[in-house]
Amino acid sequence: MTQKKRIVVLGAGFAGMFTAKHLRRLAPRDVEIEVINEVNYFIFQPLLPEVAAGNINAADAVSPIRLLLPGVKFRLGHVRAVHFRNNQLEVTDDTNRNLTHVPYDHLVLAPGQRVDLSRFPGLEDHAFTMKTLADAYRLRNHVINCLEKADVAEDPAMKRRFLTFVVVGAGFSGVETAGEVADLLDQSLKFYPHIEAAEIRMILVEYADRILPELPEDLARYTARELTKRGIETWLKTALKSASESTVEMVDGRVVETRTIVATIGTAPGALAESLGLDMQWGRIKVDGYMRVPGHDNVWAVGDAALIPLPGNTGTEERFAAPTAQFAVREAKTLARNIVAAIKGAEPGVFEFKPMSSLASIGCHKAVAVLFGMRFSGTLAWLLWRVLYLGMLPGLATKVRVLLNWILDHFFPRNTVQIDVPTRSSARYLWFRKGDEVLKTGNLGDGFYTVLSGKFEATIGAGTPHPYHRVLGPGDHFGERVLFGGDLRTGDVVALEDSKVLFVERGDFRRFATGFKVLDDYFRNYLRTNFPEHMLPDEFRGADERKKDRA
Amino acid sequence: MTQKKRIVVLGAGFAGMFTAKHLRRLAPRDVEIEVINEVNYFIFQPLLPEVAAGNINAADAVSPIRLLLPGVKFRLGHVRAVHFRNNQLEVTDDTNRNLTHVPYDHLVLAPGQRVDLSRFPGLEDHAFTMKTLADAYRLRNHVINCLEKADVAEDPAMKRRFLTFVVVGAGFSGVETAGEVADLLDQSLKFYPHIEAAEIRMILVEYADRILPELPEDLARYTARELTKRGIETWLKTALKSASESTVEMVDGRVVETRTIVATIGTAPGALAESLGLDMQWGRIKVDGYMRVPGHDNVWAVGDAALIPLPGNTGTEERFAAPTAQFAVREAKTLARNIVAAIKGAEPGVFEFKPMSSLASIGCHKAVAVLFGMRFSGTLAWLLWRVLYLGMLPGLATKVRVLLNWILDHFFPRNTVQIDVPTRSSARYLWFRKGDEVLKTGNLGDGFYTVLSGKFEATIGAGTPHPYHRVLGPGDHFGERVLFGGDLRTGDVVALEDSKVLFVERGDFRRFATGFKVLDDYFRNYLRTNFPEHMLPDEFRGADERKKDRA
Repeated sequence: MTQKKRIVVLGAGFAGMFTAKHLRRLAPRDVEIEVINEVNYFIFQPLLPEVAAGNINAADAVSPIRLLLPGVKFRLGHVRAVHFRNNQLEVTDDTNRNLTHVPYDHLVLAPGQRVDLSRFPGLEDHAFTMKTLADAYRLRNHVINCLEKADVAEDPAMKRRFLTFVVVGAGFSGVETAGEVADLLDQSLKFYPHIEAAEIRMILVEYADRILPELPEDLARYTARELTKRGIETWLKTALKSASESTVEMVDGRVVETRTIVATIGTAPGALAESLGLDMQWGRIKVDGYMRVPGHDNVWAVGDAALIPLPGNTGTEERFAAPTAQFAVREAKTLARNIVAAIKGAEPGVFEFKPMSSLASIGCHKAVAVLFGMRFSGTLAWLLWRVLYLGMLPGLATKVRVLLNWILDHFFPRNTVQIDVPTRSSARYLWFRKGDEVLKTGNLGDGFYTVLSGKFEATIGAGTPHPYHRVLGPGDHFGERVLFGGDLRTGDVVALEDSKVLFVERGDFRRFATGFKVLDDYFRNYLRTNFPEHMLPDEFRGADERKKDRA
Repeated sequence: MTQKKRIVVLGAGFAGMFTAKHLRRLAPRDVEIEVINEVNYFIFQPLLPEVAAGNINAADAVSPIRLLLPGVKFRLGHVRAVHFRNNQLEVTDDTNRNLTHVPYDHLVLAPGQRVDLSRFPGLEDHAFTMKTLADAYRLRNHVINCLEKADVAEDPAMKRRFLTFVVVGAGFSGVETAGEVADLLDQSLKFYPHIEAAEIRMILVEYADRILPELPEDLARYTARELTKRGIETWLKTALKSASESTVEMVDGRVVETRTIVATIGTAPGALAESLGLDMQWGRIKVDGYMRVPGHDNVWAVGDAALIPLPGNTGTEERFAAPTAQFAVREAKTLARNIVAAIKGAEPGVFEFKPMSSLASIGCHKAVAVLFGMRFSGTLAWLLWRVLYLGMLPGLATKVRVLLNWILDHFFPRNTVQIDVPTRSSARYLWFRKGDEVLKTGNLGDGFYTVLSGKFEATIGAGTPHPYHRVLGPGDHFGERVLFGGDLRTGDVVALEDSKVLFVERGDFRRFATGFKVLDDYFRNYLRTNFPEHMLPDEFRGADERKKDRA
């Protein structure tokens, strides 16, 4: 061991963050620990419904990862590939479009899971989700917007749609979201003089025959009664069929007119986890009891994305670690120990844990809880819930901020400020000075460029025997090739004079150029006419042939 | 007076908000007062630099208008036209795309001004502005992003660009922004182990030969010295030439490589104010000393958008009310009195005011101030600044929240959480159920639709002798016509079966379809071939003829 060891942790949810924390505590100082994550903060997910309800500020519900992990290197970025063979990650970020290769000696996969609503037509395109901080923030702004619109709506049908809220899925997340959003509505109504409380409708839709499967049945029944008291309708044994701009349809034929659908259902492995080529089951990466990925001595998986067998495992889903925060925190501790043991040549330990508590806040200062076998419900449970959650929040600053938010919420009216932050337009103008490098081989393909004024030089295959050169002027375009195929630039573009272009972002351009026949036809023809066969992206040729097959 | 009088206030900045407040206090109870604004909160603009620096949460810096104005009707919307002839406003909102007609007996124009950077090539497309809460929030996220990127950057030139910050304009807003952002950088550096303080460069660019023209020269000199001490470079007598993706160029030839340009210069009348056909000077609406718009007995203008002569006015710019918050608050009081006098048939009063104080916070717990002729600078001035600003903040809840933010900032590290809220994609999929109304005559044209599956019926001129009917299936599109011309729908589209479309938002579609020749040609041809001449939008035909002229 002449070189410094590097442990790279991919993801900074409960599993990744606590693994890094314990690793820093347990590993020798000369072991470098790096965390890579797509946002620079740690989010305590159980607080998301409260962010959506506006009693906690979005910025106060989270803690900067750098603050939580002193001594750990942090990299804000997106991991696009893992090269197990040479122990390297490929990382990109959105601003500088560069690809970085990050080496590791041990790799911890903790990417979590993503929401997958694709089973229901329209749901993905019209539902709010509750997975990230941005989701919660967006839902809050939307709910306030509905109140604003309903308050001045002249058409009763339109007003009804704005005041009808549908939450799909009655697990913890669904029940808490319904309860908290109902709180927000209740507390805000006094500012909306043209809305009556009776006009608001909140529906909780659940496929199973009961709510809160995570809790004992009596507590779930208690919760159901409380929700009913508050005017929240619970539709059990109800299967969702589809969603549109202004409706949700059930399999039984019921249709609800609404502008707000919140989906708390449907998890799936993230794109990266799926692309790794590792053995998976139920959408999770298979590992052994040490959390090691079979066949890879130095690759480990932890948290929701990992399928971790518990002692006495019989192959049924119940005998694996549950995808919850409580499990993740314990897994992290064992995993950190195992990795340090592997570095030192010591014996690893098998993961073992039996969760002791379950809590759900149900709005209106009430909660339900199971703690060490004891059951609580009502306001006492809610106070317990707050104390326990405050304890679990990492970082003193965040604890104090959340506590102050809670206190202020008791003394002041709910903040109904709607702060939408319009992001940059997808189609926008960019200026380049003479000599500026616009695209570079190996960069991430960020979008499509049309020249409005000025001049550019494009080079493909610089340094090869047959490079392709072209000067581009007004009306010409570049960047289209990579958008149909891979995602890395394969050429260079430099501004030959001060120039202005119209830029369209990759995702929007791709959807538009493939969905709108005029553009699809144009680009297929353009590419075939302007580039030699071998320079065309594989995927493009593939897609083209599939098209021929269909014709 | 048989009918209830209605006073409508357009805009809820200092001028509009306080006019409504005083009106509610002074006007008889049966006078209805309505405020129309594009956001549902009041923003205390002097706090924007602190929001950008992250010591005040965005949501805490603002107050909901409904909370501040009890007894006043509030409408969240965008005023697109004023019909002076029949005393009506045309109001739209983004969600339901409906046009509402709002009648008034008295109209108060308080739309403020907008930022206009169009004089400098590239500046509009690449600079951050500091006018709205979203601007401040965006700048804060961007600055943190620069730190994240610089901390892991391998290319020294790239790192330098991320750590160079240029603020254009050295008035209050520019100086405070430079000072506060420098504070954010200083306090955050400890979390970015690979960035040295010496690597950060902050440049304040000013066209005039001094900073802070609003303050006496000795205080400005003091401030300049303080900025220099803190390592902020001040480039006086420096004219900006242009900006690009990664550079700012000065007229004297100096070029700065940077990813961050903040422009605090360039005000212009808003689009609405310009479209009203009222007499304007220096970009402001001319009014008499009573703030009445000449030729309109029941139309008044106030705040930054109004050019209000002061007693002893000689026609020079100095003898008009200054476009500042202090003036706006006083104007509001006089205007409310005048409108109530007009309703009651009493005598109005002329506006008169001499500002007593000027304050600027310059970062690092220092400020400069003139109060009743006395000068203050340093930490004492900064404390004064905080006390006075706290006093000016409307609403107790906001005062307490801002105060708590300030206190927390002293005890805890600056919150370097970067909360980017990705908004909906511009090109996205929408689902419609059979019978859903997709577009309706008179709606605001929100974008372009391509049918991916299903079937729609389009009708133009329903109820006229020669309506135009068409059934649209996969590959067909609609919504393109209005995007080249006016902005209201002139036809109806209904889903004939469950359908899926690809939707592209209006602004992005318009830029793409006009900037990209392929689309421009296609749509011109498509419109001409598919619609009778009289159904084509005027603007489209105009643009087309201009094109012919050029050819």
